[in-house]
Amino acid sequence: MAMVDVSDKAEIFREATATGIIKLKPETIKLIKAGEIAKGDPLFTAKIAGVLAAKKTSGLIPLCHPLPLTNVQLDVRVLDEASVEVTALVKAKAQTGVEMEALTAVAVGLLTVWDMTKQYEKDAAGQYPSTALERIKVVRKVKQPVQKT
Amino acid sequence: MAMVDVSDKAEIFREATATGIIKLKPETIKLIKAGEIAKGDPLFTAKIAGVLAAKKTSGLIPLCHPLPLTNVQLDVRVLDEASVEVTALVKAKAQTGVEMEALTAVAVGLLTVWDMTKQYEKDAAGQYPSTALERIKVVRKVKQPVQKT
Amino acid sequence: MAMVDVSDKAEIFREATATGIIKLKPETIKLIKAGEIAKGDPLFTAKIAGVLAAKKTSGLIPLCHPLPLTNVQLDVRVLDEASVEVTALVKAKAQTGVEMEALTAVAVGLLTVWDMTKQYEKDAAGQYPSTALERIKVVRKVKQPVQKT
Amino acid sequence: MAMVDVSDKAEIFREATATGIIKLKPETIKLIKAGEIAKGDPLFTAKIAGVLAAKKTSGLIPLCHPLPLTNVQLDVRVLDEASVEVTALVKAKAQTGVEMEALTAVAVGLLTVWDMTKQYEKDAAGQYPSTALERIKVVRKVKQPVQKT
Amino acid sequence: MAMVDVSDKAEIFREATATGIIKLKPETIKLIKAGEIAKGDPLFTAKIAGVLAAKKTSGLIPLCHPLPLTNVQLDVRVLDEASVEVTALVKAKAQTGVEMEALTAVAVGLLTVWDMTKQYEKDAAGQYPSTALERIKVVRKVKQPVQKT
Amino acid sequence: MAMVDVSDKAEIFREATATGIIKLKPETIKLIKAGEIAKGDPLFTAKIAGVLAAKKTSGLIPLCHPLPLTNVQLDVRVLDEASVEVTALVKAKAQTGVEMEALTAVAVGLLTVWDMTKQYEKDAAGQYPSTALERIKVVRKVKQPVQKT
Repeated sequence: MAMVDVSDKAEIFREATATGIIKLKPETIKLIKAGEIAKGDPLFTAKIAGVLAAKKTSGLIPLCHPLPLTNVQLDVRVLDEASVEVTALVKAKAQTGVEMEALTAVAVGLLTVWDMTKQYEKDAAGQYPSTALERIKVVRKVKQPVQKT
Repeated sequence: MAMVDVSDKAEIFREATATGIIKLKPETIKLIKAGEIAKGDPLFTAKIAGVLAAKKTSGLIPLCHPLPLTNVQLDVRVLDEASVEVTALVKAKAQTGVEMEALTAVAVGLLTVWDMTKQYEKDAAGQYPSTALERIKVVRKVKQPVQKT
Repeated sequence: MAMVDVSDKAEIFREATATGIIKLKPETIKLIKAGEIAKGDPLFTAKIAGVLAAKKTSGLIPLCHPLPLTNVQLDVRVLDEASVEVTALVKAKAQTGVEMEALTAVAVGLLTVWDMTKQYEKDAAGQYPSTALERIKVVRKVKQPVQKT
Repeated sequence: MAMVDVSDKAEIFREATATGIIKLKPETIKLIKAGEIAKGDPLFTAKIAGVLAAKKTSGLIPLCHPLPLTNVQLDVRVLDEASVEVTALVKAKAQTGVEMEALTAVAVGLLTVWDMTKQYEKDAAGQYPSTALERIKVVRKVKQPVQKT
Repeated sequence: MAMVDVSDKAEIFREATATGIIKLKPETIKLIKAGEIAKGDPLFTAKIAGVLAAKKTSGLIPLCHPLPLTNVQLDVRVLDEASVEVTALVKAKAQTGVEMEALTAVAVGLLTVWDMTKQYEKDAAGQYPSTALERIKVVRKVKQPVQKT
Repeated sequence: MAMVDVSDKAEIFREATATGIIKLKPETIKLIKAGEIAKGDPLFTAKIAGVLAAKKTSGLIPLCHPLPLTNVQLDVRVLDEASVEVTALVKAKAQTGVEMEALTAVAVGLLTVWDMTKQYEKDAAGQYPSTALERIKVVRKVKQPVQKT
């Protein structure tokens, strides 16, 4: 068990985009659109939680390197009548890629949507028959030499 | 935007079980089974990362209450020729449920499997055409009065 | 140097409310009201940052006890043409008070407003001639025996 | 809501100095000067808490970038018969400024002084009629090209 | 790999004391006694670092339960002409013992002494020929039913 | 009390190796070798805990600089019939050394072994008569100019 040794790799420009969705009840989606979720706006809250989570990645995933992220952007939107989509874009000048940071931002963003809407998703027995996170994946990775400034 | 006020709720026994899967290439699954993943055993590493993540939930999800977890158990196993499943069981005597802790453990466990196997999942262009987290959900919640001791 | 030993104190209901303000330029306040701050809504972001910070208090203030907070609520609003006010209410059933948690939530909430608006507050030399946090204080503390449930 | 993208900015030398005060009762100030605060030396404790807090800034303020700080210095002193002043100096070679780090160090340093002296500041009803943090501001920012070494 | 399930155990009063030493050069000990360590007082700094570390134990040791510590006390003193001793006392009303918290406080306290004195301990080649942490152990554990209040 | 100012130091390649041992009962060592520790494999768990701890060093040791570690490797093995040895290797391109990171990884790795085996180490009175961490030290430090890439 060992971190990959990136000591001899050059620092290049890194970028990664990840996405994922949370399946919610149509009634919950309507409440989100109407701005009527009692705990507050789940989309905005998910963005902030996701940005903070990206910065905590190396404290959560054992073999991730601590990276000096230069940008983290979250987009959270209602995708259709039964799902919300979270997209995260992460950039760094680093010796290794930032896809784990983007994925962590997406996962925590989606979990935040779950937490904000859970009272509407539970059934009478307190169970979640239909809520689920799905299709969390890396959409695109970029790496290119750093521009001299 | 506000945490739910649980000040007047009784502390009762809480339990939640969550699961999820990561889709991997069949060749990656074979390497896992053979114990040949270069970065180390992804299943064991995912268990530890998941247990630690459950304890960090209220630091990640903005409106989660800090809860005195009395048990966190992770099960991580090869589900079939193209997926690994993570299951997390969390318990507490608390004023609110522990499903977000179980879900967070599952999500971070699955992301850890991704991180440990990513060198085998990338294609020649450095992209992840098939890797994905799927079906992250709460399997079962329990709540019952605390037994007097 | 030692934490106060609260081992023999009874757990009672605790509540604390703290407030504070940040002095901003009138032009910045206008941008906030118009929803035109480039980095996003500073009021909503401050609420979330404050809630998360309340939960981190014992990791920031060396002699604070870790406390099982049952509620954290932030209110962030434009107070007048040159200031934003942050108010935090924190509750717990605990052996010691929660005023440090409320104060930490206010301080981090206010710092978040600063961070979100700093591009409008800097002068041509990159200095902050007028921005300041003021009047961070505890408005009210409550303690009372826990109601049996 | 999005972090400022600093990917294309050059790393230059950054420095920021912030200050702030805590208003305390004259009797509390006398106890500090006499070294008789029961919980221990609040000035020294505040320095350490402030240094640690500077390093946690990007985990507290949602849109702050994680920065490789090269120096953090805290000065904590009795300013007059009713106040203690905290000053923080932070340096980094970075793509964005370090004023939020200096401000966070000051705020947490001041909160630590509050926590260490709170037993002397409370009145008979357990309230804080006069304690307050005031004038937390950025005194000076510096940026200049990095010297070649 | 699983946390011990303490869900059905009664909350009782827990206390643990741990100690350990750091071997330093006699010249370093003299500097400590004379208050001449350039980075500041290593004994006081170690106390604070140890108290904070005790509270972080469940985030560091994977299978430790998060516990509501009611007291953490550190004693740090020059033991003899070549060693400093750190002692930590931790208390909680909990379902499991607090010895890992006491040990973590001692270990981090000792590491802090190392960090504060390292410039005097290094030889000409930048190595540490004699510095070492030794005899980190649990001196005493106590458990007893909680007094009714 | 102040961090060492490393702003003007060049970033060079840094490496540090630290080791330490935990004294355990021969029966406990036999259980480890047989893979029969109830809480799970203490050697593997210690490796992961140590890697994560190395990354948290600047949050634990007050005056440590946050460093962009490029590699952390832990080796944990049964040394003889009564001890387990943890070795940590840490690398970075940085303005200051990484020995505190290596030492922190070793200390937390050893504490994790303690936690995983504590049920076998306690005597009938719940005390630890023989368990101890010993000989935690820096084996070797390296610094050399960074290779141009």
